[in-house]
Amino acid sequence: MSATDILFKRVTFIGIGLIGSSLARSIRHTKVTDHITVCDINKAHRDKALELGLADDVTGGFIEAVKDADLVIICTPPGVCGDVAAAFAPGLKEGAIVSDVGSVKQSIIHDVSQHLPDGIHFVPAHPIAGTEHSGPEAGFAELFDKRWLILTPPQGTDEAAIEKVTEMWRRAGSMIERMDAQHHDMVLAITSHLPHLIAYTIVGTADDLGDHLKQEVIKFSASGFRDFTRIAASDPVMWRDVFLNNKEAVLEILQRFSEDLTVLQRAIRWGEGDTLEELFARTRKIRREVIEANQR
Amino acid sequence: MSATDILFKRVTFIGIGLIGSSLARSIRHTKVTDHITVCDINKAHRDKALELGLADDVTGGFIEAVKDADLVIICTPPGVCGDVAAAFAPGLKEGAIVSDVGSVKQSIIHDVSQHLPDGIHFVPAHPIAGTEHSGPEAGFAELFDKRWLILTPPQGTDEAAIEKVTEMWRRAGSMIERMDAQHHDMVLAITSHLPHLIAYTIVGTADDLGDHLKQEVIKFSASGFRDFTRIAASDPVMWRDVFLNNKEAVLEILQRFSEDLTVLQRAIRWGEGDTLEELFARTRKIRREVIEANQR
Repeated sequence: MSATDILFKRVTFIGIGLIGSSLARSIRHTKVTDHITVCDINKAHRDKALELGLADDVTGGFIEAVKDADLVIICTPPGVCGDVAAAFAPGLKEGAIVSDVGSVKQSIIHDVSQHLPDGIHFVPAHPIAGTEHSGPEAGFAELFDKRWLILTPPQGTDEAAIEKVTEMWRRAGSMIERMDAQHHDMVLAITSHLPHLIAYTIVGTADDLGDHLKQEVIKFSASGFRDFTRIAASDPVMWRDVFLNNKEAVLEILQRFSEDLTVLQRAIRWGEGDTLEELFARTRKIRREVIEANQR
Repeated sequence: MSATDILFKRVTFIGIGLIGSSLARSIRHTKVTDHITVCDINKAHRDKALELGLADDVTGGFIEAVKDADLVIICTPPGVCGDVAAAFAPGLKEGAIVSDVGSVKQSIIHDVSQHLPDGIHFVPAHPIAGTEHSGPEAGFAELFDKRWLILTPPQGTDEAAIEKVTEMWRRAGSMIERMDAQHHDMVLAITSHLPHLIAYTIVGTADDLGDHLKQEVIKFSASGFRDFTRIAASDPVMWRDVFLNNKEAVLEILQRFSEDLTVLQRAIRWGEGDTLEELFARTRKIRREVIEANQR
């Protein structure tokens, strides 16, 4: 398989938001396929996909969308992956590969796998990339360049299918990692889900302030708060589903965070400067490690 | 007073870290003064200030540092502003202006004012600008360009002194705002102090994980965590002092934040998706207001 071979005769996207539309743009450039079908229940998204040249054809019907597809990529919010899989599964052709891009893996594997007939290969994937913008017009082909793509195929998944999906992402510029789904969900709970939950909370706390104070907070947001507003502008439905579908890992890490915050709260109340300084010096080291790990 | 007039014959910096060295660079460019004296108890900082051309002379002695100064700018961590003011106050010449750059204002006004003799004008100021780096070599003249500078002069402060300090910051590119010190401390508790406390906490929580998991968190930090590590790399001593010196406002806003987080925790536990989605949609609106407020 060379880097210019067509990988799939026909690819179908189920859902064409930020991630789906970015991947559609990427696989056009990299000749992963000759033909892209886009299925989205939102007519405005379908029209936009055609207008942007992301799709050769579009449809609102799940069975029709997948009937000739060699690869079907579910790019919906995590909470409906199972439902859409149930809807399109009867139309899949023998040997087709199904993949996804969801930010949680255990629940999606559970929800999707049960609907797929024998002879279909499911290769769960998660590109660690995104922006705070949503919808097909927000996508761009370079979104995945030099970003991680985590594959979490269950034991026994067909290796040839995994390799084809891997090659598609490699061509998008991704760095590939393979991981157990449960481990993925714990790592992401810490690196992504908790930070988003905290950012949503703090911006919500500010939103509940009196009007005058709130306007001042917006005006002087440059001092830290602004970074949180960017994170807290991410897609509401997608993130709702992330928290509902990675409940155990998120609650576990949230509990640890709350305990740690309570310790700092107490140190502030009682003027225990050493406790604060010791922690603040320690966290500075982690920043250095993050930079050394070449994450900019 | 034209934009090219010398504003102060002699300016003295007490402390030459990130903020002090940036302002020293700026006032050289903008001809605010002919002569800069740097006083720092750290000899390495004094040597660096000379080497970088930030100072015409340097000293470790507070009295000597201020004896001919028309403007003395305290650029130390907030917790020692009062101590250094006590140390240099006997050396101040009649009519000198004292200013500062601290991130908390009520406690600094309290700590500094009590040591200043009659005939000295104290103009408290806070440039809302910074990076996660520290020390004289981390500074740069453009740090304050298009950033807010908040003045919190107590009632009765000499208007001519306020205007001279204002003009210095205007030449550095700052946008100027005047505010009551108590109000400043509440606004900054929300926009800056709480976000930093949260970022320090979450990075500390990650640091306490087992080694293998921690390495994975660092590796996959791009998904949100990385933004927090940058904030949590800020100067430990400065931030210790901020929390100890803005205790009431920080604890008040932290309490609100904790309540809001508990509501979300419960919503996740009981699968109440509507509660999550409603908040996440609401916070997205604040991001738009922040962008409209022209803060990038």
